[in-house]
Amino acid sequence: MKLGSIKATEGNKQKRDGELCVISKNLKFAVNVSSLFPATAENLLSAVENWDEISPRLQKIYEQLSSENISAGSKVDGLNVIAMETEKFHSALPRTWLFADGSAFIHHIKLVRMARKAALPETLTTVPLIYQGECGKFLNPTEKIPQVDFAHGTDFEGEVGVIVADTPMGISAEDAIKKIRLVVLINDVSLRGLIPEELAQGFGFFQSKPSSALSPVACTVDELGSAWIEGRLHLPLQVHLNEKFFGKANAGAMHFHFGQLIAHAARTRDLVAGSLIGSGTVANEDSTVGSSCLAEKRMLEQIQTGTAVTSFMKKGDRIQIWMEDDKGNSIFGKIDQTVG
Amino acid sequence: MKLGSIKATEGNKQKRDGELCVISKNLKFAVNVSSLFPATAENLLSAVENWDEISPRLQKIYEQLSSENISAGSKVDGLNVIAMETEKFHSALPRTWLFADGSAFIHHIKLVRMARKAALPETLTTVPLIYQGECGKFLNPTEKIPQVDFAHGTDFEGEVGVIVADTPMGISAEDAIKKIRLVVLINDVSLRGLIPEELAQGFGFFQSKPSSALSPVACTVDELGSAWIEGRLHLPLQVHLNEKFFGKANAGAMHFHFGQLIAHAARTRDLVAGSLIGSGTVANEDSTVGSSCLAEKRMLEQIQTGTAVTSFMKKGDRIQIWMEDDKGNSIFGKIDQTVG
Repeated sequence: MKLGSIKATEGNKQKRDGELCVISKNLKFAVNVSSLFPATAENLLSAVENWDEISPRLQKIYEQLSSENISAGSKVDGLNVIAMETEKFHSALPRTWLFADGSAFIHHIKLVRMARKAALPETLTTVPLIYQGECGKFLNPTEKIPQVDFAHGTDFEGEVGVIVADTPMGISAEDAIKKIRLVVLINDVSLRGLIPEELAQGFGFFQSKPSSALSPVACTVDELGSAWIEGRLHLPLQVHLNEKFFGKANAGAMHFHFGQLIAHAARTRDLVAGSLIGSGTVANEDSTVGSSCLAEKRMLEQIQTGTAVTSFMKKGDRIQIWMEDDKGNSIFGKIDQTVG
Repeated sequence: MKLGSIKATEGNKQKRDGELCVISKNLKFAVNVSSLFPATAENLLSAVENWDEISPRLQKIYEQLSSENISAGSKVDGLNVIAMETEKFHSALPRTWLFADGSAFIHHIKLVRMARKAALPETLTTVPLIYQGECGKFLNPTEKIPQVDFAHGTDFEGEVGVIVADTPMGISAEDAIKKIRLVVLINDVSLRGLIPEELAQGFGFFQSKPSSALSPVACTVDELGSAWIEGRLHLPLQVHLNEKFFGKANAGAMHFHFGQLIAHAARTRDLVAGSLIGSGTVANEDSTVGSSCLAEKRMLEQIQTGTAVTSFMKKGDRIQIWMEDDKGNSIFGKIDQTVG
């Protein structure tokens, strides 16, 4: 099934978690189901906490909502069907307790480290790289990317992410795959200009990884059909910059699969329900498929011609990230952001 | 005033945020106020989000609860007064959206980097060090510290932390001080054995910083009286290991004050209400006051005798962290954990 979080207010305040919606398979319709489960699934975060209890009813609503005879104004389980408009939605998960962002595409690590003249870690192919990123307020899928200073080197990073159930410390990679409840896309905004000085301090990223945006829609693994194989999503990630092709690298090329990333993150802590685990920038060795971030493209230019000619994002630049199934249908809706 | 989070259930499930309590000044009594504000302050996290609206009434309850004629069984604002027993409480803030942990005591940075033969950052005294730590489920103040493997080098770190209101990106250090709503103590559990290999990967801490515990009580800045001066808390942090004196370093020796740490954390992102900012391990140059973590003590032993004789924590070791006002009264209650 497909889920999202519609913007909502309580009194004069915006609800920070939004309200839980079921979204139709074709992404055209939505049903706000928050009134059905006020205590256990008013929003997507509490739905993941109470998944076993509430998902069967959500699944039924999803099936009805995705049937042929549905239109805006129909009723499903007594609730109004509305047209799904991305502007009315938060990121599928508006905020959460942990964003553990991996870097599972070795090709990406090689290129960005080459770009900043940093050595490759000795454990490159044996131990996943993971950092903890901002997750207290994700940008909406169509929200402007704030730019404090062009010199900060604003970049996008197209990623796949998974949202897990409560996951105990010490879980195996195999069992960890079973903890995945939902899959999303991520634009992991990165400030390339701040990374070298920040990493030189020795504590990893902080200012260089500001708020990211997620796709408007999260979907369960069964929705991905044969494209989901043992913790990897084998479909191209579509990336357009200023309405032009930028990349379509296949997300199945992860060196570490999501089970391995989750197990790594859970080695010394429990992961709480709703934790988001990111794949890192999707990247393939085949350069004809393009890239999912500017840093890689700049590095490839430098290798080929000696000079990186592509600049980082400037005000007004537009980034679109989405994924299609083998029939060309959008799965997660679109991240569509402009630098503002 | 003083606030805490009592353990509570809903149906057969534990409420992950607990329920908001006002705690008496002498830490003897508590009143569960969650029923007064079910929508806006059922728990401490939502109370911080709605602070201006709810804090005047909480303050009145606190004043009544702290008056001389109160005992368990009394009523305050129509609510039952109970005895405050730490075992019934979560960490003051059971979970939150961001734990940005600084390292504001330069003496600590010097000693731990010396211990792991790492260079000091060039910006040591000009740019704060901050990493993002686990905050999806803090350990309770009296909860066992899980030890997966003794070789991981379990250490405690006694810290002061502040909980902020919504704080906009780009705030000045001076204005940031005004965003502090509550102060707590932190035991930032650290796995010293995992730090070198993790930092060598270049992404900072992750597995080496598992779940921390906070003091059972959070208090507003006005409670700290003259000990709070421009973003620093000038009182010794009491640390006992296995019931013996380990440290009483003064927390006022922060090189960067909390306003500077908050402003640094908010340079490229908004900080959401409830975000926790840590001071880093409290450390003084005067070695007679002891230490607030084992890594420092081991380094001092190595400098003095050539060999560190103190081991990291083993099963059964007990760590107690608290702070007293100038009359010897405990301010935040006690973190009292055993390795299990």
